[in-house]
Amino acid sequence: MDALRARAITTISGEGPSERTDTLAREEPLEIQVQGASVAVLMRTPGDDIDLATGFLVTEGIIQGAGDLVSIRHCSSVKDPEAEDNILRVVLRDGVNLDLALLRRGTYASSSCGVCGKATIEATLVSAPRIPAGAVVSSEILFALPDRLRQAQAAFEITGGLHAAGLFDLGGRRILLREDVGRHNAVDKVIGAAIRADVDRTMSILLVSGRISFEIVQKAAVARIPIIAGISAPTSLAVELGDRAGVTVAGFLRGRSVNVYSHGERIVG
Amino acid sequence: MDALRARAITTISGEGPSERTDTLAREEPLEIQVQGASVAVLMRTPGDDIDLATGFLVTEGIIQGAGDLVSIRHCSSVKDPEAEDNILRVVLRDGVNLDLALLRRGTYASSSCGVCGKATIEATLVSAPRIPAGAVVSSEILFALPDRLRQAQAAFEITGGLHAAGLFDLGGRRILLREDVGRHNAVDKVIGAAIRADVDRTMSILLVSGRISFEIVQKAAVARIPIIAGISAPTSLAVELGDRAGVTVAGFLRGRSVNVYSHGERIVG
Repeated sequence: MDALRARAITTISGEGPSERTDTLAREEPLEIQVQGASVAVLMRTPGDDIDLATGFLVTEGIIQGAGDLVSIRHCSSVKDPEAEDNILRVVLRDGVNLDLALLRRGTYASSSCGVCGKATIEATLVSAPRIPAGAVVSSEILFALPDRLRQAQAAFEITGGLHAAGLFDLGGRRILLREDVGRHNAVDKVIGAAIRADVDRTMSILLVSGRISFEIVQKAAVARIPIIAGISAPTSLAVELGDRAGVTVAGFLRGRSVNVYSHGERIVG
Repeated sequence: MDALRARAITTISGEGPSERTDTLAREEPLEIQVQGASVAVLMRTPGDDIDLATGFLVTEGIIQGAGDLVSIRHCSSVKDPEAEDNILRVVLRDGVNLDLALLRRGTYASSSCGVCGKATIEATLVSAPRIPAGAVVSSEILFALPDRLRQAQAAFEITGGLHAAGLFDLGGRRILLREDVGRHNAVDKVIGAAIRADVDRTMSILLVSGRISFEIVQKAAVARIPIIAGISAPTSLAVELGDRAGVTVAGFLRGRSVNVYSHGERIVG
C-alpha cells in the first residue's frame, strides 16, 4: 500500500468542465493490537505504520520506549490482503504492565475540579515532567526550516492533502520527516521513527505543517522534544501546556518572522 | 467562557524581537455524559457546546435526532466554576436505547475482511443509506461560498487558528456557521445547530475550511447533507464513501475553480 491513489475527477472553472486524473492522499483505518487486545483504531495514511504505532504507544503513555517492545508486525492471518496491512500486532517485553484503562480514561482525566484544561495539563505533567533549559536555536535557523520541510515533502506537493511533521537538529539539519492525513499521526510517526532510531530528542526541534493543538504539545513533551514550531497558530491550551511542561511553542513561522508563545529563552536573535 | 484568549507574545523578525498581545483560539476538554455515563471527551473551543453535543450524538449514531433528547445542560454541581462549563449532561427520552458499545466499537467495525476502508464504508452505510438525487447547485453559486464563509467568520480573522463549517442553501445563502479548533467539532456544531433548528438538510451544502477526511463525509451522510465542498483536498476514503453514500464531494474550491470527486451530477455549469 502506498500513500497516494489516483482518481478521475472533473475540474469546473469559469471556462467549463474538464476531466483529468488527480492524486489523492490515502486514508485507511489502522488497528493497533497490544498483547492481543485492540487498543486503538487510527484513521491514517498507510506507510510508516510501525513508526506510527511506536510513537502512539509512547506518547499515549502505554509504553516507555522501544525497549518495552519485543515486536510490531502487520497481521498475516486475515483473508483480505488489503486488510492485512491495516492491523498491527504488538508484543511487549515480559514485565511491562499494560494499563489499557489509561487509554479509556484518556489524558483528559477528571479531577476534583471536574474536567478542565488545568486538570488535563496536570495529568500530562505526571508522565512528562518539565523539560530543563539547555537546547537553544537561532531565529535565523528557524526561519529556514519551513522551506526545508516543504522541499522534503514528496506527497504533499502532489495531493495538497497531507500534513507533515519534521524533526530537525538545533543546527537546522533535517533528521526525519513523516506525512499523514492526520496532524497527530504525522507527529506520532516522526516521534516513533526517532525513538526507533534512538535519535537524541532533547536537542531537537519539531516542525509541524498544521496548527499546534494541546495534543501536539503533549506528544512532544512526552517525547522530550524541547522546541515546537508551526506554520500556523497554537491554541490557548497548547501554549499553557508549553509554559508548564517547559516546551518552547513558536507559531506563524513564515518568511523571516515567528511568534514565540512560551519559553522564548530558547530562541536567540 | 468565550472562544478567544489574549496572550502576551514575542514576535521575532529580521528586525529583532517585539512584544505584543496576541489572541489565541481557546481549547478545553468537554465531557459529554449521557444518562450519567461519560461517552466522550472532546477537545473543543468553548461555545455552542449544545450544538456540538447534539451533532456528535447524532453523527456518531447514539441518537436519531433532537426528538430523542429531553435535555442537554451544563453541569452545575462541580466546585470549580471553570469546570462547570466543561461537562454536559444529556438526558434521553424514555425508550431510547443507549448503545455505548457502539462508541467503543467505533465506526471502524472489524468485519470478515478484518479492518479496512471497505468495512468502514459498509458500517457507515447501515446508518446512512444512499442519499437520493434531487439537490442541484450551480458552479457559480459554489464559487461564491468561500468568501461568504470568511466574511462571517469572526474569530478566524483574529486567531488564524479556528476551522469553520458553514451550511448553505442551494441558492448560496448562509444558513449557519460554526467554528472550532477541531475540524470535526466545527462540523458537529453546524450539524447539531441545524438539527436543533429543524433546518432541511436534504437541500443544503456543507462548506468546510479544512481538508475533507472520511469522518467529515460520514457525518454529512448521517445528517443527510447531499453536497460537501472544501477549500482543501479530500482523502481517498472520503471520496469512496461519497461514491457509495450518494454524497457530492468537491474540493479545492478556490477562486473560480472547483474539483469534483464524486456525484458531479449535482453541480451544473
